[in-house]
Amino acid sequence: MSSIGIVSPQAMRFAEPLRLQGGGALADYTLVYETYGTLNADKSNAVLVCHALNASHHVAGTYEGDPKSTGWWNSMVGPGKPLDTDRFFVIGVNNLGSCFGSTGPMHLNPATNKPYGASFPVVTVEDWVAAQARLADALGIAQFAAVMGGSLGGMQALAWSIMFPDRLRHCVVIASTPKLSAQNIAFNDVARQAILSDPDYCGGDFYAHGVVPKNGLRVARMVGHITYLSNDDMAEKFGRKLRNAAETNAYKFDFGIDFEIESYLRYQGDKFSEYFDANTYLLITKALDYFDPAREFGGSLTRALACTTADFFVASFTTDWRFSPERSREIVEALVCNRRRVTYAEIDAPHGHDAFLLEDERYMNMVRAYYQRIWEAMPVKGQA
Amino acid sequence: MSSIGIVSPQAMRFAEPLRLQGGGALADYTLVYETYGTLNADKSNAVLVCHALNASHHVAGTYEGDPKSTGWWNSMVGPGKPLDTDRFFVIGVNNLGSCFGSTGPMHLNPATNKPYGASFPVVTVEDWVAAQARLADALGIAQFAAVMGGSLGGMQALAWSIMFPDRLRHCVVIASTPKLSAQNIAFNDVARQAILSDPDYCGGDFYAHGVVPKNGLRVARMVGHITYLSNDDMAEKFGRKLRNAAETNAYKFDFGIDFEIESYLRYQGDKFSEYFDANTYLLITKALDYFDPAREFGGSLTRALACTTADFFVASFTTDWRFSPERSREIVEALVCNRRRVTYAEIDAPHGHDAFLLEDERYMNMVRAYYQRIWEAMPVKGQA
Repeated sequence: MSSIGIVSPQAMRFAEPLRLQGGGALADYTLVYETYGTLNADKSNAVLVCHALNASHHVAGTYEGDPKSTGWWNSMVGPGKPLDTDRFFVIGVNNLGSCFGSTGPMHLNPATNKPYGASFPVVTVEDWVAAQARLADALGIAQFAAVMGGSLGGMQALAWSIMFPDRLRHCVVIASTPKLSAQNIAFNDVARQAILSDPDYCGGDFYAHGVVPKNGLRVARMVGHITYLSNDDMAEKFGRKLRNAAETNAYKFDFGIDFEIESYLRYQGDKFSEYFDANTYLLITKALDYFDPAREFGGSLTRALACTTADFFVASFTTDWRFSPERSREIVEALVCNRRRVTYAEIDAPHGHDAFLLEDERYMNMVRAYYQRIWEAMPVKGQA
Repeated sequence: MSSIGIVSPQAMRFAEPLRLQGGGALADYTLVYETYGTLNADKSNAVLVCHALNASHHVAGTYEGDPKSTGWWNSMVGPGKPLDTDRFFVIGVNNLGSCFGSTGPMHLNPATNKPYGASFPVVTVEDWVAAQARLADALGIAQFAAVMGGSLGGMQALAWSIMFPDRLRHCVVIASTPKLSAQNIAFNDVARQAILSDPDYCGGDFYAHGVVPKNGLRVARMVGHITYLSNDDMAEKFGRKLRNAAETNAYKFDFGIDFEIESYLRYQGDKFSEYFDANTYLLITKALDYFDPAREFGGSLTRALACTTADFFVASFTTDWRFSPERSREIVEALVCNRRRVTYAEIDAPHGHDAFLLEDERYMNMVRAYYQRIWEAMPVKGQA
């Protein structure tokens, strides 16, 4: 089991307008993507990996000259890893509206020759999937061995199974949910309000003003981050430990930092506010909020999934209170009602929602076993 | 059972400096308070009610000419109510640092003749209790029949039992905790960062600039409010209901309000930012973070509570994820280890942390029964 090594992103431009769920269209756009492994002769070994809120097409490997630039799912994807790039041709694609390369709010709107800013259209999970399907067309991939994602990425995998049933044989949905709860939406709206009310947001036009709504992004990230960690894990890692424990171990009696958890969260917020785009944050939280495939079926997820034909692997983590196991079970139950083949793993892991990104042995083994099954069922196995 | 009717606040000035836990002292200060019922001949029927984050001395009744100005625990306190003002003399006192009358950051610092602003000292639960004890002295109350509070108010009741064991016969601690968890502190710090990074906070000196950090306060309140409600209750009340459900029932595809829960939370945030003081919010969240009576006993709550002599009533609510039943059970266990008499009620209520403010029948009956017991044990019962 070794790392995938040096990788480099590619870009593909699409000149045909992409009609969007919210009305209107994106006239001209570029998707940035990476691939790992080799597409086999009958193009049957492709796996699409969809990213979550703050990730990108850079799923695995590192960039030339930047050894710290490891992909976000490097533990999952690589030679000999659960999603084995010696067997599968893996594609990571950056979604529209992102700030990591694909067309987003910081890019020039060809119609105005100014950055889109807040005028970038609100895109949905379904819009992303439609754009990903065009990339698959361009790469000559008629059917994926699997479409896979965690959290918001899992929503994309689920949307694939509904929108393009015959274009994937397996759907891998990890730490996800068929729709956000009121509490999930509430946390997203706190984050949005923090950004929108930062004077440096400038109505989304901050690029032109040479500023960045760092304070808003920072608070948005802090509140988001709390929901990614489990209560128990936070208690164990930080508890009520003081940052100055080694020195005075005393309260400071001011509004600076007393506790380790404050130091950690502020650091996470600061770091995030330095690289993430505020308009992208708004767009992605909206895509999360809007996702609800059961909506046009009177709230019936069973009916929404009736059109699917893929086999499913669904996994959740016991301490995930953002998208709890209960939410994954809703998906499983709707699939079972449709007599779909579904494998469900509820993994006892302490790390909350973030567990889907971490290298838990049982989790990794279950994904590995599932890909082994996909591999064994493939008529043509060899890579090209 | 009737309402307490028209009430009016009183104020008491203290000229002797109050030494504070964080060092220094408050030279001269005023406490605003209200009383309901009548103090009996031997002054044995007094009950002190301590308030939580955004409440005040105005516990029950209404103000003259303002029928909507009902006290925050009006369902609990009044003639024939669980805490029966026909039997008990009830005192509600506003804490130092508040924005509802007692000396706080918006008042003039006699040393500078300018508002304290951010220079108002960081006060602790123990400082509040010390100030409350002086008010009791001034009112001639040597021993309370009970000190009672919910949430942060419960922390004050607990602190009373430790700091002044012989000044209360009963300690009533509802929906509280012996200390905040890392997650609790994290949410408080998000709120503080939202306020501190609002340019209108002006380093705490916003009074002089004629502005108010409304955006920061609004976000602070929104995130706080999420933690007061249970996930299930939010799902039931709001779910994914759209605000325009009656008209188009369609997503808006912008960053305005789509969901009812967004509308509700923003409204709560807006309302709060219009009446609450930003410096007070910072101070109160710090008081919450710092409370940890076990701290000076090597983390042993049992040892911290060894000096108590009161009987205890502890209550928690099953769906409260801010201060879960587990946290109340820690208090109960430490009391049991000390062979204190403790009554514990774990109330199956759907409303999360906010349940302590609501009129749940089982909850009200249990508090009523406990005060009945207090009443029966009193040698002199009559009011003066």
